Amino acid sequence: MGWNRVALVGAGMIPFGELFEKSWEVMLEESYLECLNSVDKGIDPKEIQAAWIGTARPELHGQGAQGGVSLVGQLGLAGIPCTRVENGCPTGSDALRNAAFGVASGVYDVALVAGYEKMRDAPTSGLLGIAMQGHPLLTLGETAMTMFAPKANRYMHEYGLTKEQMAKVAVKNRKNGVLDPYAQFRSEITVEDVLKSPTVCEPLNILDCCPQTDGAACLIICRADLADKFTDKPVYIAGMGCGTDYYYQHEVESYTSYEATVKSAKEAYSMAGITPDQLDLAEVHDCFSITEIIDYEDLGFCDRGEASQLIEKGITEQDGELPVNVSGGLLCKGHPLGATGVAQCAELYWHLRQEAGERQVDIKHGYGLQHNVGGRSISNSVVIILSNHVT
Amino acid sequence: MGWNRVALVGAGMIPFGELFEKSWEVMLEESYLECLNSVDKGIDPKEIQAAWIGTARPELHGQGAQGGVSLVGQLGLAGIPCTRVENGCPTGSDALRNAAFGVASGVYDVALVAGYEKMRDAPTSGLLGIAMQGHPLLTLGETAMTMFAPKANRYMHEYGLTKEQMAKVAVKNRKNGVLDPYAQFRSEITVEDVLKSPTVCEPLNILDCCPQTDGAACLIICRADLADKFTDKPVYIAGMGCGTDYYYQHEVESYTSYEATVKSAKEAYSMAGITPDQLDLAEVHDCFSITEIIDYEDLGFCDRGEASQLIEKGITEQDGELPVNVSGGLLCKGHPLGATGVAQCAELYWHLRQEAGERQVDIKHGYGLQHNVGGRSISNSVVIILSNHVT
Repeated sequence: MGWNRVALVGAGMIPFGELFEKSWEVMLEESYLECLNSVDKGIDPKEIQAAWIGTARPELHGQGAQGGVSLVGQLGLAGIPCTRVENGCPTGSDALRNAAFGVASGVYDVALVAGYEKMRDAPTSGLLGIAMQGHPLLTLGETAMTMFAPKANRYMHEYGLTKEQMAKVAVKNRKNGVLDPYAQFRSEITVEDVLKSPTVCEPLNILDCCPQTDGAACLIICRADLADKFTDKPVYIAGMGCGTDYYYQHEVESYTSYEATVKSAKEAYSMAGITPDQLDLAEVHDCFSITEIIDYEDLGFCDRGEASQLIEKGITEQDGELPVNVSGGLLCKGHPLGATGVAQCAELYWHLRQEAGERQVDIKHGYGLQHNVGGRSISNSVVIILSNHVT
Repeated sequence: MGWNRVALVGAGMIPFGELFEKSWEVMLEESYLECLNSVDKGIDPKEIQAAWIGTARPELHGQGAQGGVSLVGQLGLAGIPCTRVENGCPTGSDALRNAAFGVASGVYDVALVAGYEKMRDAPTSGLLGIAMQGHPLLTLGETAMTMFAPKANRYMHEYGLTKEQMAKVAVKNRKNGVLDPYAQFRSEITVEDVLKSPTVCEPLNILDCCPQTDGAACLIICRADLADKFTDKPVYIAGMGCGTDYYYQHEVESYTSYEATVKSAKEAYSMAGITPDQLDLAEVHDCFSITEIIDYEDLGFCDRGEASQLIEKGITEQDGELPVNVSGGLLCKGHPLGATGVAQCAELYWHLRQEAGERQVDIKHGYGLQHNVGGRSISNSVVIILSNHVT
């Protein structure tokens, strides 16, 4: 039923945070070594035949244009092919998607996927500088916040969502992050904390917003039929999807959903041959609290306008029916663009293998979903569904 | 024998040049429409299921971070998946390589590959600004010229290559460009012109260097077994390769070859199941005259130290035994990074289909080779071999 052509056999990550003491090279190296060491039956780096690296905008963060070669040279893998993928917020997940195509095409047996972003060294060109992505005139004054906040206002108007309900998303994810050693924030907050925190762009307060974060993560993937060489517990790519929406905000049809997510989710569910009720957990794109609310509906976790009920009823809590962002999510763990999607898949990998420690969720059906949405006008999305079994 | 999983069924390009009057959006649109119209039996844009776009550094050229979505939104294709590939000079060819993986993986039947670069609006951040690619300290003062010129000096020392012989590469390619309506320069030059032109970086004079160029090119690819829906004359991807070298100049082993090219050529020939003597033509990376000289040897067109003889004997002329850069090459046609590799494949497509007009070369074996090399320390390369028949 599912795609099952490619398996994940290793995952590594560094704790996300304000890593002024680590260069991007060091972040990459550390996450790569963690990843290599995570392979149950071991791996010789010489077995890695190709690599894909996701990094969204080192050029705008003052780190130059880092092409594919920067990764492999840095990791002692000079010689092998390496492609740099750049796709806004889904940069890391799209790097995995392209690597999976390379393996599924039959050309490579084993590949490395790496993602990193070093955002804190140049804070003003982080999410605030998102305007630099688009046309210099049309995007003047446009930041991540000014793209997402109007959606929150419209959603509140349409469906009666309250600021308290939005705040509960942040509260949930910060609570989850306490258990995640890779999260940038390790402390709980209350609804009152969120509501009293400074307004960034009405109706989003600062605790409704993800932080600026440095981080890196790696995965090793291989042909599904070769996975047992590396582990007895491979995790398979059951389905993948990528979708886009119109490029400028004034062209976008809906202010209460993200069409790019809807399209990528449809492709991924169809490829995996499953429905949302078969998911044991999801790592979704919560760059702002409103984003997670809208994600629930775009990803089919509930009907339109019902998302706040998932939060109110605790369904997406760590011990709920469908745990969402048990890693802490972007709001708590952080959002180093190129690393985010790769790290989300690493989190699913650990849960699906029952090795997520204190934050382990119940695995019943054996499926987990990863999701990113972003880019200009929030018009680009990737969804990847992983499974602990061949379906 | 060859890979033959993916076919090219359409190719379009705009004339390269100093296109101050065209935005990157307009360049893309024009090349896309040319490409659509080139499909023999026609194509409905709705048949395009996914896209890959190559653009190397719009961020450094002041155009913002253009992710995949910028392409599809601009071309009326909003909705479909789109990945942006960035890989230095091989950016365009690596976009085609990744699109081919997507199709060969079985996930997509028909895909669009687009490449563009708008370099003239910000001249100082073009090839002169290549230093911005790497570590701010280690690459201080490093430009394309200061990376390639030492190779020329070393090659001249080792093998007795003369400046006259290097100049003949530029003379050949400028002569070829006279016949190519897509070339930036349409006039011949002499060896004396090259030798008398100003020194840029010893031993390279300005006419040994490719210009700064704006341009865009597109290809439509599909599953090989579906090609006859679009054309009776498909061109197949017989083989592809990508290779890397060490990241910093001081780590690179040879100053008279590019290991990245050697590795990518080996992968591509092996996949295609051919040897260089089966090539009817090649479009190789001649960002500087010395580069084409070294390419001949790295790509196996001759033995080490023999490249100058190919030039002296006219073997790589348009009517020679192995015509190289009949399009005019980077030296004459121009080098808009993301567009270059896509445009080289379009040129091969036309020749292999016998429709290259006045510059048509003899097609005997039915194979053409595309090659790029670049990035930091000239450490990244892609080679793609196309064929007019399934092998």
